[in-house]
Amino acid sequence: MGDALKYATRERARFQSELFDFLRIPSVSAKSEHDVDTRRAATWLAENLSRSGLDVEVLETPKHPVVLGEWRGAGADAPTVLIYGHYDVQPADPLGEWSSPPFDPEVRDGKVFARGSADDKGQIFMHVKALEAALADGRILPVNIVVLAEGEEEIGSPSLVPFVEKYKQRLAADVVVISDSAMFQEGLPSLLFSLRGLAYFELKARAAKTDLHSGAYGGAIPNPGTALARIIASFHEADGRIAIKGFYDDVLEWDDQTRAQISNLPFDEDDFRRNVEATALAGESGWSVLERLWIRPTCEVNGFLTGYTGEGAKTVLPARAMAKVSFRLVPDQRPERVRKLLQAHLAEVTPPGIELELLEHHGGLPWKSDVGGRLLEAAATALEEAFGTRPVLAGEGGSIPIVVEFERILGSPALLVGFALPGANMHAPDEWFPLEHFEKGIGALVRLYGELGKK
Amino acid sequence: MGDALKYATRERARFQSELFDFLRIPSVSAKSEHDVDTRRAATWLAENLSRSGLDVEVLETPKHPVVLGEWRGAGADAPTVLIYGHYDVQPADPLGEWSSPPFDPEVRDGKVFARGSADDKGQIFMHVKALEAALADGRILPVNIVVLAEGEEEIGSPSLVPFVEKYKQRLAADVVVISDSAMFQEGLPSLLFSLRGLAYFELKARAAKTDLHSGAYGGAIPNPGTALARIIASFHEADGRIAIKGFYDDVLEWDDQTRAQISNLPFDEDDFRRNVEATALAGESGWSVLERLWIRPTCEVNGFLTGYTGEGAKTVLPARAMAKVSFRLVPDQRPERVRKLLQAHLAEVTPPGIELELLEHHGGLPWKSDVGGRLLEAAATALEEAFGTRPVLAGEGGSIPIVVEFERILGSPALLVGFALPGANMHAPDEWFPLEHFEKGIGALVRLYGELGKK
Repeated sequence: MGDALKYATRERARFQSELFDFLRIPSVSAKSEHDVDTRRAATWLAENLSRSGLDVEVLETPKHPVVLGEWRGAGADAPTVLIYGHYDVQPADPLGEWSSPPFDPEVRDGKVFARGSADDKGQIFMHVKALEAALADGRILPVNIVVLAEGEEEIGSPSLVPFVEKYKQRLAADVVVISDSAMFQEGLPSLLFSLRGLAYFELKARAAKTDLHSGAYGGAIPNPGTALARIIASFHEADGRIAIKGFYDDVLEWDDQTRAQISNLPFDEDDFRRNVEATALAGESGWSVLERLWIRPTCEVNGFLTGYTGEGAKTVLPARAMAKVSFRLVPDQRPERVRKLLQAHLAEVTPPGIELELLEHHGGLPWKSDVGGRLLEAAATALEEAFGTRPVLAGEGGSIPIVVEFERILGSPALLVGFALPGANMHAPDEWFPLEHFEKGIGALVRLYGELGKK
Repeated sequence: MGDALKYATRERARFQSELFDFLRIPSVSAKSEHDVDTRRAATWLAENLSRSGLDVEVLETPKHPVVLGEWRGAGADAPTVLIYGHYDVQPADPLGEWSSPPFDPEVRDGKVFARGSADDKGQIFMHVKALEAALADGRILPVNIVVLAEGEEEIGSPSLVPFVEKYKQRLAADVVVISDSAMFQEGLPSLLFSLRGLAYFELKARAAKTDLHSGAYGGAIPNPGTALARIIASFHEADGRIAIKGFYDDVLEWDDQTRAQISNLPFDEDDFRRNVEATALAGESGWSVLERLWIRPTCEVNGFLTGYTGEGAKTVLPARAMAKVSFRLVPDQRPERVRKLLQAHLAEVTPPGIELELLEHHGGLPWKSDVGGRLLEAAATALEEAFGTRPVLAGEGGSIPIVVEFERILGSPALLVGFALPGANMHAPDEWFPLEHFEKGIGALVRLYGELGKK
């Protein structure tokens, strides 16, 4: 293992240069004009991974292909580690808010700025380079390795569950390792104990055929903009609780140990607020910020559009209004049940005369760690050796729906080890990743593969 | 007068062709890229009006010029009629919803479709042609005429009040005639007894510096979209009444005679709804549709924008939200007082941690007819002779703020005689005007000038 670490140190300039090449490919899975780029990212990654010594295939799905790499040199009796990541990225809009072009990596202050640097090209690529270091010069690992990199994570992974079902045998593993999240804070590595789920909806309200003059019709024809605002206002109580009947029925009451762990973490709520220049903190009363983010569900308006929103004044009575509304879910909530509760709520609160349509976008189940003490201990050791600090257990407010599916289909517990930092702008302009973490993280992963192979 | 009417009939094809030329000039006052066109519309109108026999000047204002025409051949002892209209038009967006290009007049089914055909180029031009007919071949009128056509009506007439103050002496008149509205219904001419006023605001809510990931921050940082929806929802009671404290204090209780007049009008509420393909009627309970439109105030969302509103799902926690909200006012409400009441309301309902900014766009006072019996009788006679039906008294839900200003500055009562039809799409795609009304209306106006000159 010492040789592998030395190799990684020696090759770090090349590793970084290859990372930048990878980041230059605008693999935006949501936009069909980038389909060619998304495929190019898959073949680029496959080619690079095969140079690490794995047998690699690019397997087709209905949309973007899956890159599947295998190294089974540890033998049938050794444990198998499935490494999951994704090579697709979020759209880069709004482009004007980037300090440097999103697909032209630029290093500033020890950070590489580029779309995908943190989410998730930078992190899946750390595994690729850790495997190269671990297997170069004829070295072997004590674990078998399967790498699965998909190209549809940012559009809700529509092909992945069928893929995992189909290749269930080949993907069989003792643990799934995923690096698609952030450390708890700078200098403090972490392992995730939870993820929130997601239920994402679109509401469309209609009242008339076309926009009307607000003088000639206002006061007598329903206003779908006002109606939708009233509907959205009905989703919360004044104290921040969600007002949809039955919404909290399936919300797990976490054990005192977890809540104590959370409250012991070094976290300054006011720093958190200041970092995003927010005017205030908000949310459900009775819970700390970290609890609100990790173990409590939310309902957020992600978008709202009606009428005239350009410069100046237009006296229009809108005919239509639309809003995007999503819920972050916690164990044991399920998107299907949230949809049913929402439908029942809408039936009650929709003002008379408003035609309301409810569409559902992708969702995902919440997750609570089921990882055993031995696996967690292996990861903790690897992280402590690489970063010099014992990792903490942390929750995550975002969603990685596939984690639950791996556990369900493969029966494999998941180990979530992320190397980005809070405020990495994962779905925002100026996404960044610390280059120091790129290097230390590769070291941590080389160690992790070793630790996971220990009896 | 018979000769004037014959002249108008004989020249109708040319009148129409000139109208189409006028409509072809895209005099969109709100858009600076059309400033050249707006000025061209002014000079075109001035030139045409001078051919009717008036002394015409194009007078500068800080923005778009005023066309001022005078004919004082009736002598100092005769009454003076001030004709007011505007040569600017609303923007034509959304262009894609027009059946034919907005600035290329097309006749279908006896209607001319073009931006400005009803509001107000078509109607001010009827006065221009009625004056030509009345004054051609050496004829004279029993009244002096002043024509004032402005180019800023659609942007709130910012220059007009100073202009009227400045030219108070030249504009002195016994009555102001304005044709910028619609008849009550097809075949039933009308005279207006009221206009609603307007107070138009923009609300800007902010919570953070940039948009954030709804997973990583949702539930702990305020959502300005949700907050603004809650603010807007607070503007109405469930029964449609406006919930802003003190809002109804200045609302005039109309006399029983007016309410009886309104309820006697031939009006089918369900037809009104079906004409705009609305899903239902709405509004303040306890009032008929016409009362809601004419003598009761409203609060409407004219626009709302926050977050991501494109295709698919984006898990964004918006940093900002904006809404345009306007109030239609009735006597004796005033925009300044509504602003103060709104400010007080916002101070109460704005959720903690939301930075809210209130901007004010143009507004205007409501109006209640002060026109005397003799003037009204003159107009009724002229309309009955031209259209074969005695006109009704009607209200108007829209706003023509300058009406109140003419009364205040010049002390002249206003006579509002409109020739468009309901559903003319005045601020919407496919604006139209009936060509039959263009012809009959010119006849009515020739008669009106005559009637107003009778002792």
